[in-house]
Amino acid sequence: MRVRWRGTLICLIGAWLAAAAHADEGMWTFDHFPAQEVAQRYGVQITPAWLEHVRLATVRLNGCTGSFVSSDGLILTNHHCVESCLAALSSQDANLVDGGFLADERHPEGRCATQVADVLVATEEVTAQITAAVAGLDAAAAASARRRTLTLLEQRCEQASARRPAGRLKCQAVSLYEGGQYFLYEYKRYEDVRLVFAPESDIAAFGGDPDNFQFPRWSLDVSVLRAYENGKPAHTPQHLSIDFDGPREGEPVFVSGHPGTTSRLETRAQLEFTRDVVLPQALLRSAELRGRYLQFAFANAANAALIEAPLDNLENAIKVRRKLLDALHDDALLERKSAEERTLRAAAHLDGEDPWRQIAAALAKERDFYEPYTFIEGGAGFNSILFRYARLLVRGVEERTKPNADRLREFTDAALPRVARQLAARLPVYPEVEAMTLSASLERLREWLGPDDPLSQQLFAHDSPDGVAIRLVAETQIADPAVRQRLWEGGAAAVRASRDPMIELVRGIDPQARALRRRYEDEVDGPITAAAARIARARFAAYGTRVYPDATFTLRLNVGTVSGWNEHGRPIPAFTHLERAFARATGARPFKMPDRWLAAADRLDRSTPFCISTSNDIVGGNSGSPLIDARGRLVGLMFDGNIHSIAGDYAFDAANNRAVALHPAMLRVALEQVYGAHALFAELSASGDALAGRAAAR
Amino acid sequence: MRVRWRGTLICLIGAWLAAAAHADEGMWTFDHFPAQEVAQRYGVQITPAWLEHVRLATVRLNGCTGSFVSSDGLILTNHHCVESCLAALSSQDANLVDGGFLADERHPEGRCATQVADVLVATEEVTAQITAAVAGLDAAAAASARRRTLTLLEQRCEQASARRPAGRLKCQAVSLYEGGQYFLYEYKRYEDVRLVFAPESDIAAFGGDPDNFQFPRWSLDVSVLRAYENGKPAHTPQHLSIDFDGPREGEPVFVSGHPGTTSRLETRAQLEFTRDVVLPQALLRSAELRGRYLQFAFANAANAALIEAPLDNLENAIKVRRKLLDALHDDALLERKSAEERTLRAAAHLDGEDPWRQIAAALAKERDFYEPYTFIEGGAGFNSILFRYARLLVRGVEERTKPNADRLREFTDAALPRVARQLAARLPVYPEVEAMTLSASLERLREWLGPDDPLSQQLFAHDSPDGVAIRLVAETQIADPAVRQRLWEGGAAAVRASRDPMIELVRGIDPQARALRRRYEDEVDGPITAAAARIARARFAAYGTRVYPDATFTLRLNVGTVSGWNEHGRPIPAFTHLERAFARATGARPFKMPDRWLAAADRLDRSTPFCISTSNDIVGGNSGSPLIDARGRLVGLMFDGNIHSIAGDYAFDAANNRAVALHPAMLRVALEQVYGAHALFAELSASGDALAGRAAAR
Repeated sequence: MRVRWRGTLICLIGAWLAAAAHADEGMWTFDHFPAQEVAQRYGVQITPAWLEHVRLATVRLNGCTGSFVSSDGLILTNHHCVESCLAALSSQDANLVDGGFLADERHPEGRCATQVADVLVATEEVTAQITAAVAGLDAAAAASARRRTLTLLEQRCEQASARRPAGRLKCQAVSLYEGGQYFLYEYKRYEDVRLVFAPESDIAAFGGDPDNFQFPRWSLDVSVLRAYENGKPAHTPQHLSIDFDGPREGEPVFVSGHPGTTSRLETRAQLEFTRDVVLPQALLRSAELRGRYLQFAFANAANAALIEAPLDNLENAIKVRRKLLDALHDDALLERKSAEERTLRAAAHLDGEDPWRQIAAALAKERDFYEPYTFIEGGAGFNSILFRYARLLVRGVEERTKPNADRLREFTDAALPRVARQLAARLPVYPEVEAMTLSASLERLREWLGPDDPLSQQLFAHDSPDGVAIRLVAETQIADPAVRQRLWEGGAAAVRASRDPMIELVRGIDPQARALRRRYEDEVDGPITAAAARIARARFAAYGTRVYPDATFTLRLNVGTVSGWNEHGRPIPAFTHLERAFARATGARPFKMPDRWLAAADRLDRSTPFCISTSNDIVGGNSGSPLIDARGRLVGLMFDGNIHSIAGDYAFDAANNRAVALHPAMLRVALEQVYGAHALFAELSASGDALAGRAAAR
Repeated sequence: MRVRWRGTLICLIGAWLAAAAHADEGMWTFDHFPAQEVAQRYGVQITPAWLEHVRLATVRLNGCTGSFVSSDGLILTNHHCVESCLAALSSQDANLVDGGFLADERHPEGRCATQVADVLVATEEVTAQITAAVAGLDAAAAASARRRTLTLLEQRCEQASARRPAGRLKCQAVSLYEGGQYFLYEYKRYEDVRLVFAPESDIAAFGGDPDNFQFPRWSLDVSVLRAYENGKPAHTPQHLSIDFDGPREGEPVFVSGHPGTTSRLETRAQLEFTRDVVLPQALLRSAELRGRYLQFAFANAANAALIEAPLDNLENAIKVRRKLLDALHDDALLERKSAEERTLRAAAHLDGEDPWRQIAAALAKERDFYEPYTFIEGGAGFNSILFRYARLLVRGVEERTKPNADRLREFTDAALPRVARQLAARLPVYPEVEAMTLSASLERLREWLGPDDPLSQQLFAHDSPDGVAIRLVAETQIADPAVRQRLWEGGAAAVRASRDPMIELVRGIDPQARALRRRYEDEVDGPITAAAARIARARFAAYGTRVYPDATFTLRLNVGTVSGWNEHGRPIPAFTHLERAFARATGARPFKMPDRWLAAADRLDRSTPFCISTSNDIVGGNSGSPLIDARGRLVGLMFDGNIHSIAGDYAFDAANNRAVALHPAMLRVALEQVYGAHALFAELSASGDALAGRAAAR
């Protein structure tokens, strides 16, 4: 899963019956971790102190996870989690994505403009408040009331935290068990996160897309960041010590992190909608865009460098969606889903309601306007950073003028600092890439809405989609942070007066886009949320607490073992070693070893373990998660799953689903023997055992 | 269906129950046309003379249909059927695809290098011979015996025809009703076909991909060829006269032509395989290639011109597959299929066999090697004209040395002239396009087979797929017809000795490719053919002759009426007019009117009818078919269907499935008032009424 998590698929939250046969299944919240079952099964004690230590050492990054690994704020995460930071810190002379980075006297640690690091410090259940707010309302009104209440709860939480001595926290409303529970999650946020180390992309992503979601594997997908406070390295006493010798085969290991989204409790109707509508359309768009990226990249080396990171993300998305589609073509999966629904329906008290049928009815409505919604409001028709800036501005200045609780959720007071940070960031924008992505999406907008759709008629009255895209990108000034800043500060009047063509485009379509969003919320999301909550309550009633919620990019912990699996009857060992990486190097990307590695080849111990396969239940968003042993030491760095793990979105297959981690011994070899990063290695090694004295017995 | 028919989907032949409710459904062979039902329903008499006249005036082109429309060999067909001829006849100075062509004294009619025109003159049933040849054999042995027997029958047929005064005919074995009947079809072949007229692509394909498979419609998708014999225009007394006033709304009309393939009698298991495996994979490859084509085209005008025709074909294929996939996601279609199977199973005497289960079992085997088969033998991994030349050579010289009946079917004595024609053709090959298509397909070969597959390891040991593609295209000499000629004449020894890298590539993979083909024939095609024949016999026994066979790119006739339909409750009229074409012109492709049309705008009658919607049951391969009235006059030129017609591959929807024709009045306006093609128009008008005196009563 070489990409940060993004909410590309419909995200439903619910509970999943933890069958005894799947002991390693489950993405548990820290307050319901099944420590007793783990003790019985593996003979290790996970204590409250262990849990608190690991929770406070785990960091949420933008779409990824990391962990504190020194007392001075060092964060260990994946290379693919910092690619956009590397691109932003690059210059014409130094491409940090390709060439890597190691901070030293001459090259200070560089700030990642939009990166924040969040640590979960407290949670508070607010289910009762939400339940009270929506009581007696129909689905659409309930959805609106729920949004308002969540905004107000977040607002009060942040205001209250600001009055406490520990300082202001970020408060985020979280729905678990699909309306079975609502929480406020309170995070300590580090706003200043800087780049310390990253290897070359050729070794970080060795094997590239062909090897992505594969094991055996040889990718040094690591990077190191550092959290700062008040301009100085943050003091982080709660951090993980690294055991560079790594784990043993069969050893129980734990993954703490922020799995992005799973759909294990979607109804059969929802899975069929994903199979028949969502995935095929998304795959078609992605595959075509990949073709454009590749043709662009092959034109010359400069193009290839520009498109490298977006291409990585896109290829990852394609592989994921391909395998999700394969999983949904497994009739047995759908049949199990039907059987579960029949069982639950028979057991539940539903007061004459049929929530499964209600969800199917809402999806039938969605089908009626899926294409306009996806292309106009969902952004599939306007794939462009510049368009997204323009929409942030047009909507942001309008929403800002409303009372906090009446705003779209992404523009509440709690969310506005993120908007401002995005608008202010000096991220590079490449006009030729922008024109290409916008051209590709406008072409498809016209195809899917049809040339006689009023929007097509309006946009393309005098020019082709490609011509329109080129003109918009050439003429807009919005790539300039100062221009964005002026508009943001100038507010609604400034944005209304703007003659910038991208602003004009967004202004022109926004009434229709907002209407589609409203229709989606009223006719689809609201009814589905209400029906899913009914199902969740029925499931709660039937199965109690032996359940875990679907992933929601919130903090979870799970247990597994270091273990391979059997592929077509052939055993796949749990460890890979450096030897095979050299054997696989062809000289051509993505199987090209960086020069530094070729130069160091003779002095490296080729028997060094490289990657680890474990049975932990993780998904995208867990990228960069620490793999932790029973004593609380970091023994690996998660960066991927095997090919079977993709289907884990819908169901966990204990026999075949495996997570993939970088072995810490390989990190040691890289830092000490390839990059000469002695000071960094010393800091990572000196971290001591922060859990000393509180360590669980093994 | 702006593309010639290609056998991209599994082609199954069978019989379809003609329900009385679907009177316009059916692709009838000429010897079983339901003239009596047509007389009852429409009050028109279709006589044996009418049938013979129309049959002899109908021409089979490469993947398309045409009709003789003068006594001197003029053939009317679509522009999109002659695009490759236009490209081949273009020069640096004159791009005939873009600019069009009209033969005159200075620009003689130019020969289309690979185009032939076939007229069906006789058919002979050979079912008994085939049945005898396969009696008592298992599925794989039967498949082999069937191939041998078909080759020998074709050989004898051609030898016998050569001894007759009318001259040598092309004989082709045809399977109808899936083993219910086998035929030899005997064609008079015109080997010399020349280009007479084509309009600019901007008006021929006005609306481009956005309007493809749409109605209302305004595309002048017409071209005129001429058949030659012995260097002179062929004498073609059997030709259609054109009624330039066109048909009336509601009038019964007939389409004669060569529908390519339908799958109306595939089993549910086959449809599911197409839905879950075939179409998603093909769509992904096509969408990515479209992205590469578009990015290539947008780089500059020269690139755009090079890629125009392949892009047209590709976009058509994408739209078709998208809509086929939509059709297969209609559970009601699959449920009807299951119901039919249950009914037939209950009615049939199957001697304990379960052919539906046998087909499902064969598909399960196919699934096991679908990717290697598709990429290595099916060519999805080597999308390149140069590769196909190399494979023709490597296989052709080897097969030629075997006894005729032992060869692969595409290299029998009957087929070798076509091979030689292909190898000799001086078709332009553009290295940058070749490198792009080969690169794209090699990239996916590695993705789908995996980087550790032995073939991937061998092909990409030292370079990327893109690098390999560029080198192969740069270094091969096979684009040169003289080089191909030398190798073809040099035979197996010359090809074995060749150091041409493309020949070496094909030689290297051919053992594996042939093994995959053999496995496919033995494990998949053989068992499916045997089981499908069982089903066909059961259907025959149950329903007798009230059935028509699935399309097989052989001659068919059907009846319909000039009629629109209702789209979301809104009536779509049966005719469009020139007025709206001008109103839709934006100045940007594909809605750009050629200059000649803009210049002529003021003198044209804007109320001229442009296109016609009819309820005839046609599919790809019918492109260029004549639309014929009850008196045997040409009243339209088929070139497309509406969006609902795509699902006609699986079932005919009488309420919504419509065919789209060019109105002959528009052809008259174009020839006389836009192109000044007075001589051509005079020849088309002078054709008289060849059926005069034999005309059916109206």
